[in-house]
Amino acid sequence: MSHNTFGHLFRVTTWGESHGPGIGCVVDGCPPGMPLTESDVQYWLDRRRPGTSRFVTQRREPDQVKIMSGVFGDDRTERQVTTGAPIAMVIENADQRGRDYDDIRDLYRPGHADYTYDAKYGVRDYRGGGRSSARETAARVAAGAVARRVLGDGVRIRAALVQIGKIGIDRGKWSWDEVENNPFWSPDTEAAKRWGRLLDETRKDGNSVGAVIEVEATGVPAGWGSPVYGKLDAEIAGALMGINAAKGVEIGAGFEAAALTGVENADEMRAGNDGKPIFLSNRAGGILGGISTGQPIIARVAIKPTSSILTPRQTIDRGGKGAEISTKGRHDPCVGIRGAPVVEAMLACVLADAKLRHRGQTGN
Amino acid sequence: MSHNTFGHLFRVTTWGESHGPGIGCVVDGCPPGMPLTESDVQYWLDRRRPGTSRFVTQRREPDQVKIMSGVFGDDRTERQVTTGAPIAMVIENADQRGRDYDDIRDLYRPGHADYTYDAKYGVRDYRGGGRSSARETAARVAAGAVARRVLGDGVRIRAALVQIGKIGIDRGKWSWDEVENNPFWSPDTEAAKRWGRLLDETRKDGNSVGAVIEVEATGVPAGWGSPVYGKLDAEIAGALMGINAAKGVEIGAGFEAAALTGVENADEMRAGNDGKPIFLSNRAGGILGGISTGQPIIARVAIKPTSSILTPRQTIDRGGKGAEISTKGRHDPCVGIRGAPVVEAMLACVLADAKLRHRGQTGN
Amino acid sequence: MSHNTFGHLFRVTTWGESHGPGIGCVVDGCPPGMPLTESDVQYWLDRRRPGTSRFVTQRREPDQVKIMSGVFGDDRTERQVTTGAPIAMVIENADQRGRDYDDIRDLYRPGHADYTYDAKYGVRDYRGGGRSSARETAARVAAGAVARRVLGDGVRIRAALVQIGKIGIDRGKWSWDEVENNPFWSPDTEAAKRWGRLLDETRKDGNSVGAVIEVEATGVPAGWGSPVYGKLDAEIAGALMGINAAKGVEIGAGFEAAALTGVENADEMRAGNDGKPIFLSNRAGGILGGISTGQPIIARVAIKPTSSILTPRQTIDRGGKGAEISTKGRHDPCVGIRGAPVVEAMLACVLADAKLRHRGQTGN
Amino acid sequence: MSHNTFGHLFRVTTWGESHGPGIGCVVDGCPPGMPLTESDVQYWLDRRRPGTSRFVTQRREPDQVKIMSGVFGDDRTERQVTTGAPIAMVIENADQRGRDYDDIRDLYRPGHADYTYDAKYGVRDYRGGGRSSARETAARVAAGAVARRVLGDGVRIRAALVQIGKIGIDRGKWSWDEVENNPFWSPDTEAAKRWGRLLDETRKDGNSVGAVIEVEATGVPAGWGSPVYGKLDAEIAGALMGINAAKGVEIGAGFEAAALTGVENADEMRAGNDGKPIFLSNRAGGILGGISTGQPIIARVAIKPTSSILTPRQTIDRGGKGAEISTKGRHDPCVGIRGAPVVEAMLACVLADAKLRHRGQTGN
Repeated sequence: MSHNTFGHLFRVTTWGESHGPGIGCVVDGCPPGMPLTESDVQYWLDRRRPGTSRFVTQRREPDQVKIMSGVFGDDRTERQVTTGAPIAMVIENADQRGRDYDDIRDLYRPGHADYTYDAKYGVRDYRGGGRSSARETAARVAAGAVARRVLGDGVRIRAALVQIGKIGIDRGKWSWDEVENNPFWSPDTEAAKRWGRLLDETRKDGNSVGAVIEVEATGVPAGWGSPVYGKLDAEIAGALMGINAAKGVEIGAGFEAAALTGVENADEMRAGNDGKPIFLSNRAGGILGGISTGQPIIARVAIKPTSSILTPRQTIDRGGKGAEISTKGRHDPCVGIRGAPVVEAMLACVLADAKLRHRGQTGN
Repeated sequence: MSHNTFGHLFRVTTWGESHGPGIGCVVDGCPPGMPLTESDVQYWLDRRRPGTSRFVTQRREPDQVKIMSGVFGDDRTERQVTTGAPIAMVIENADQRGRDYDDIRDLYRPGHADYTYDAKYGVRDYRGGGRSSARETAARVAAGAVARRVLGDGVRIRAALVQIGKIGIDRGKWSWDEVENNPFWSPDTEAAKRWGRLLDETRKDGNSVGAVIEVEATGVPAGWGSPVYGKLDAEIAGALMGINAAKGVEIGAGFEAAALTGVENADEMRAGNDGKPIFLSNRAGGILGGISTGQPIIARVAIKPTSSILTPRQTIDRGGKGAEISTKGRHDPCVGIRGAPVVEAMLACVLADAKLRHRGQTGN
Repeated sequence: MSHNTFGHLFRVTTWGESHGPGIGCVVDGCPPGMPLTESDVQYWLDRRRPGTSRFVTQRREPDQVKIMSGVFGDDRTERQVTTGAPIAMVIENADQRGRDYDDIRDLYRPGHADYTYDAKYGVRDYRGGGRSSARETAARVAAGAVARRVLGDGVRIRAALVQIGKIGIDRGKWSWDEVENNPFWSPDTEAAKRWGRLLDETRKDGNSVGAVIEVEATGVPAGWGSPVYGKLDAEIAGALMGINAAKGVEIGAGFEAAALTGVENADEMRAGNDGKPIFLSNRAGGILGGISTGQPIIARVAIKPTSSILTPRQTIDRGGKGAEISTKGRHDPCVGIRGAPVVEAMLACVLADAKLRHRGQTGN
Repeated sequence: MSHNTFGHLFRVTTWGESHGPGIGCVVDGCPPGMPLTESDVQYWLDRRRPGTSRFVTQRREPDQVKIMSGVFGDDRTERQVTTGAPIAMVIENADQRGRDYDDIRDLYRPGHADYTYDAKYGVRDYRGGGRSSARETAARVAAGAVARRVLGDGVRIRAALVQIGKIGIDRGKWSWDEVENNPFWSPDTEAAKRWGRLLDETRKDGNSVGAVIEVEATGVPAGWGSPVYGKLDAEIAGALMGINAAKGVEIGAGFEAAALTGVENADEMRAGNDGKPIFLSNRAGGILGGISTGQPIIARVAIKPTSSILTPRQTIDRGGKGAEISTKGRHDPCVGIRGAPVVEAMLACVLADAKLRHRGQTGN
């Protein structure tokens, strides 16, 4: 689909601007009978919420979700389940400060969508980026929470940051537990410390840095995805590149695959006890020919540095005249940090859609 | 769309297997009144055709396209134009050697879609990869030829290889003219020579190598693309990742953006004479907030090494038993080489669709 | 599209149940820069509102719409316009009486969707029909208000009732002004009086009656609609048949065309002063080959009698046991009456989408 | 979908003009492993073929279908099955006589799409109606043959003519066997005789007549269809109204429902032995709330009289000047007759899509 809807059978539509009354989404096509409450969704929203450490924006948003439709709680069964009808969710914008943006309403911030929205539409909601704000991603996370229910407990989706600025992690020290213990989603304790120092310095300089997020989905059975224009990797690439500030996506070995030989790159197989193959490596990142192999699905996303920075930059105004701009306000010094739950959510949505479509076509 | 169709207003459906009677596509939604003949399409197909140098597969396919519908040649006007009806194109498979594949019909080639097609469908056309064959990309190139007509002469789309195996080009020596003068689509004469030696060696070893393709579209006006789930970069990423053997896609600075600061990454603007901005750099790759900026659109695709290699690899058969496989037949030692026109075609299709959708919504 | 979204470039998604917190819609793909306020939408909602005469349901719903996104009011321009972003609208359910439905939560009302929802989903929100309630149509009317803005003042869409029960209007007495002067949307004063007597009697009997609604769109230029599976008449038929309780749709001469000869049915043309044809009749209903002719578009919809009636009917319960049911509550004796603004809204949405798609493909 | 594609999971794209090299379709999303040969498809095409009696067009088209892709015949299993890949089918145009149309290439036939295609596209293939020709429906019938395979033997779809001109059948004499025994698809022997006399007279007069086709699908389980914009009846209405010359569609009691009371219209239920309801009538036509009830699905389509008639009619030419037109050539005096297999095919496609989507969402 185009514009503000994505997915085919599991389909998500989002709406809302940064400084309007709220944001929200409609999740359509959900299987009926799945338990779903507001707290199920809230759990994931809380992981993305701003203001949780000094390394992210200080905007104070409780991000309290309200489910408006598509679930029904029968007093006899005493639990609330999906009905198969569209699930509408609304999150109010609590901490709006539209006035903060008066200074820049006629200026185009470099690296931002300010100029392109004006070029396309001839009008834009300049308050906090309007529709292009990272705030929109809360609606994605809410939808992702529903997608996880569709996938069930057998599929586990987890993201981690593997690089901030020029500092990468040591993959030998990877610990998923550690990801929960630092404000950077870092699987490597040591890297987290170095990132903390980098970000303190970056903020002090009125600057920002980029990041790379890695996401993994385990438990996906072989067979999901639809060649040739509904390839699972193509849909993942589209979904992840559509996240604010994303500039690159790779699956499995990714760009490194270009430097490998066919002998190195082949994920050899040997017979497993259940008749299924045991793969001896996973350079494919769990996808071959656009269809899942049963191995973990692995993707990485490059996130550019936050474009809203204090350091003055050269720009033009709406009238086409030269100007200088310095973006004040409450911005993430590394927007990639809060991107991790968004990346998880988008992967969950793509996989939920792939699951339902696979079932539709094949009955499995 | 899913499965075998992509695009919204400019919409392409392809069909066909490597060793069936032929392959083809239906291009729907094309504006009426555009001149279009078979030779317009043939020009681009010839650039992708196999057997043109010793570095690509020796399969002999004339790849002669036949337009079956959607154009009309009025004898008064003496030219053939599109009618607005769907344009069906067929390319016969001339050089089929299905027998070549008898040896592997029960084996899964590592890195190939053999196993995943079987896992998904329980049946597969094993002759030459069937639907997953790179042969399908000829249909994409045919569709791309029509897309170029939709875009008009103002938009120019060109691809080049910037890396084969571990050997990258020297960007300081970039020459688009040179791309036409060597069998590797290399913009750097020196790199082309080194790649020739690498490929000769690779073939001798029964091995293969990967590549990185860069594509550029100039002349795209500001304003194309649709936030937030029809972002131009997201659609490009999906389209390019959907090309056979693609493992990564990046836009503009791409993965390098992760290592940049906000100050470095900002593409500053100054006033141009026409009221439009002059961008002082193009790290964005011509897209901000999912909408084109008017700068050249730049993307790169990582292509993995060909999975069909002579060197024996460990695998299993359809019964789940261990086996060894060595893929004979006529395979490209670097499938990335013939990927360049496919990358161009996919970008052309995405842009044609973006142009029509932008016009639909805004009237511009 | 499927499920709860319809349209392609002008796209509407609705959500909400009869007795949940509210209902709403997201209208995507709207051209930017169009003036749009809540009162613009409210005007049309008020025409559909329940409780306005004794001939419709006495449920008291203010149906106050709130626009949540997609519009922006610049204090310099002092007017609010669409931004091109999705327009989310919410209408609260004020007068919920879920308890009213306790008696029937295990019974299937004949002619209702009770049984089929259970058969499909295994769960249903039984309060007031849940998602299948006519209440959902308020969201369609809100979307239709936006669609009218897209169409502009040149296109006028008006519906009237031409039959209630067995009593049809006298077409010789057609007056659009009269439609506004009676509670039945009748263009014939005399018929309105007879319908009043019929409905009083019907209610007294604990019964209900059906109706036929006719809708007309004038000012649609020749050329809208897309052969062969996006035909304007096909999309109108789908949209109108999708309205609650609709059982038939016809365009122009409709079912009567079956009894005509080719000589009778041909809408002959003669030359107009502007080079465009003057049609001597309009049996086509303004559409030929799926494309608008420039004549008024005429469609009719048959609406079945309200299924919720007081007269006891034989049915079964969820356990499959026989039972008798008599539906109490506040129901329209002729649901067709409040259907007129819904029919208008659906036609407006189909035409707005056709306009944008035509512009996308042809530039006109 | 729009334009030349319809369906969501089971998706059909058609192409081709009346007097081009051929016509065809691509059927995508088909479940794998279903037996499918050209003769399976040919069986249904033969039922629609022109030239089979003196009551239909004398154009001689063998309508021989060729399957180009999507099936695979393994010599070990000795049968050909679908692979899950798109099934492309091509039918050559054998009996083209483009010259026949030279006289009318600048004239607009009343009741035809000639004027509207020109108004939309500014160019048209005037030979035999080009894309708007009834010839396109052969591709629908081919797709319908595949759809029947998806539905399986449990679902049976049969059409019959119930009215030609002013002469309706006697429903008391309905015999499905008789439908196969006369050239009119009439279930009533007596009506067939009267229709024969009517058509002989009509042809002699250089005139044509309309018809009503009724179609029935038995064996559809309860639960197919998707509220609220993917309603089964709405999709059937759209699909049937999209057939050439269709002017009206009704489901179950249809337009007669408007004249019924709620008491009359309610399809009462009593308990069946299997826990499922036994419906005491079927005024709903097998669909409630957009979802199938398990009863036979019943729809009717009104087909207007053939617009191409010998009797001269008043028209204009492309230059906007008045003229008179008399359409020679080989035309059906009642295009409704050959419409019956097309109506069956369209219903089959809609149901196949509904089946797969239902399975996708619910797993059933």
